[in-house]
Amino acid sequence: MDLWYSEYHAPDTRFSIQVSKQLYSEQTPFQQIDFFESDTFGTFFTLDGLMMVTAKDEFMYHDMICHPAFCVNPDIRRVLIIGGGDGGSAREVARYPQVESVDLVEIDERVVRLCQRYLPQTAAVLDQDPRIRMHFQDGLRFVADAAPGSYDLILVDSTDPVGPGEGLFTYAFYHHCFDALNERGILINQHESPYYAAYAREMRRSHAKIKETFPIAEVYDFHMPTYPSGHWLFGFASKKFHPLHDARPDDWQAIGLKTRYFNTELHRASFALPTYVHEALEAQDEQYG
Amino acid sequence: MDLWYSEYHAPDTRFSIQVSKQLYSEQTPFQQIDFFESDTFGTFFTLDGLMMVTAKDEFMYHDMICHPAFCVNPDIRRVLIIGGGDGGSAREVARYPQVESVDLVEIDERVVRLCQRYLPQTAAVLDQDPRIRMHFQDGLRFVADAAPGSYDLILVDSTDPVGPGEGLFTYAFYHHCFDALNERGILINQHESPYYAAYAREMRRSHAKIKETFPIAEVYDFHMPTYPSGHWLFGFASKKFHPLHDARPDDWQAIGLKTRYFNTELHRASFALPTYVHEALEAQDEQYG
Repeated sequence: MDLWYSEYHAPDTRFSIQVSKQLYSEQTPFQQIDFFESDTFGTFFTLDGLMMVTAKDEFMYHDMICHPAFCVNPDIRRVLIIGGGDGGSAREVARYPQVESVDLVEIDERVVRLCQRYLPQTAAVLDQDPRIRMHFQDGLRFVADAAPGSYDLILVDSTDPVGPGEGLFTYAFYHHCFDALNERGILINQHESPYYAAYAREMRRSHAKIKETFPIAEVYDFHMPTYPSGHWLFGFASKKFHPLHDARPDDWQAIGLKTRYFNTELHRASFALPTYVHEALEAQDEQYG
Repeated sequence: MDLWYSEYHAPDTRFSIQVSKQLYSEQTPFQQIDFFESDTFGTFFTLDGLMMVTAKDEFMYHDMICHPAFCVNPDIRRVLIIGGGDGGSAREVARYPQVESVDLVEIDERVVRLCQRYLPQTAAVLDQDPRIRMHFQDGLRFVADAAPGSYDLILVDSTDPVGPGEGLFTYAFYHHCFDALNERGILINQHESPYYAAYAREMRRSHAKIKETFPIAEVYDFHMPTYPSGHWLFGFASKKFHPLHDARPDDWQAIGLKTRYFNTELHRASFALPTYVHEALEAQDEQYG
C-alpha cells in the first residue's frame, strides 16, 4: 500500500510523508487529531492536518522553546505553558531541578491523553513529575485569571492562529501574560515563520503586538525541518532581561544539561536573523488586526 | 490542469510544487535539465529532477556561498567558481569592485545557456561583466591544471555528489584546490545537509576530507527552504584565515553592499551549529570512501 500524509505549506506547495500506518484518528470538540507512523520520522501527530510533532525532530523545537529563557535566567522556578499538550516543552522545563511548578494549560485534554498513549517520548513526563499540573481549559481565560506576578516564565506553545489557538495571538492575551509574569518574567511565543506569505503575516502580527506590550521584545530562529520552510521563530519578551546582554551562558552550562540542539553559542547566534527577516519584522505597512 | 513537480528528500518524504507550466526540458550529455514556472517560487530549474534554483529563495544560497569569505578577506581579487552555471554565485562575487577576475567552470554549457534564457535574475551577469570568464569543462581537471597559488577564493557550487558532480567530492579535488589557492586562499564548499540520512553522510564525508586537506576547516549553516530539510551547510576552509577570529566585519560593512540574507552578525552566528550537527561532523565511526 502507498499511503501518504500531505500538508500544504502554501496553496501550491506541499510536504508529504509516506506512512506505514495511521495509528489513530479522532475528531474532538476542538479539532481533528491524527497519529501516524513513518520510517524516517517515527511517530508523528497532526492537528487539523497540520504537523505538530515528529519523534525525529521534536528535540529541535522543544530545546529552542525552553532553554534560551533558562540561559538568560537560570533561576526560573515557576513556569506556565500555554498549549504544549504533547508534553515536550514540559519535559525540557522539568529537567531543571530548581523549577518548582509547571502549570500546563491545554484546551483539549484528548491531545494529552493520546500523546501519553502514542508519543511517550514527549508525554511520559506529564504523569511522572509531580511538579507538573495539568489544566484542561482555555489558555486565554487561565492567564487572565492568574494572580499578578505569579510566573517567572510563560511558554506559548500554540498551534497556528486559526481554530483553537486563535485567542493566543491577541493583544488581550499578551497583556494578560504581562500581568501574570513577575518583574523578572520572560515570555516565549511561538512566532511562526518568515518565508511563506501567510506565515510571515502572522509572524509580523504577533511580533507587533508583543513589541507594544513588553519593553524588551526580540526574535530568534532555528531549523525545524518538518514545519513549513524549515525556518521557524520564537519571540523572546521580557520586562527586564535582554536575551543577549543579560545572558548567563556560564551559569547555564554549570547546570550540566545535555542537549541535542541547543548550546550556549547557538543561544547568541539564534538572535542574529537574516536581513529579510529583520526587514519584515520592522515593516509597519500593515494593519495588525 | 493540476501539474506538480516533486522531489524526494528521503525515500518516504517528498516536497512538491504546483507548476503553472514547464518552460523547457532537455537531456544533455551530462544530465536532464528542466525549467518550471510557479506562483509561489517564480521560475525554478532542476537537474536530474533535483531542485537547483528558485527565483524566490536563490538569494539565500548565493549570499551565503559568497559573502562570508569576503567578510573574512575583503581584499579577494581572483576567484574560481566550480559549477554554479546558473550565475548566481558569480553575480554576488561580481558586486565587489576590487575583484579582478572570476573563472566560472561549468561542465555543462547548456546549464548556462538555458539560465541565460530562462533565469536572467541569476545568469544575466555572465555576459555583462567582462571580469567573468566561462570555461565549459570538467572542474576537477580545470583546478588540477591551474597554476599553483592562482586564486584568493574557490567556491565549490556543485550539485550533489552523484552524476556530474561526483568528482568534486574527492580527496584529489580538494588537494588540487589547496594547490590552486595562494597562502591567503579560502575554499567554500557546498557541504550538503545534516538532517536526512543520505545527505548527512555526504556532509560527513566532505568535511572529513577537507579537514585532512586544510589547516583550518569550519562549517556554517543557513536556511534554504527549497532544499531538503531547509537546513543547509557550507564548509569554510583556509590555509591562514579563521572565519571568526580573522573576520573583518567593519571592513566588510564599509564596502557598502546591500544584501537580503547575509549580514555581519549573521556571519558570526552561522558558524554556531546545533549540537547534533557538531556531533555528526566529529563522528569518526565511518569509512570515508
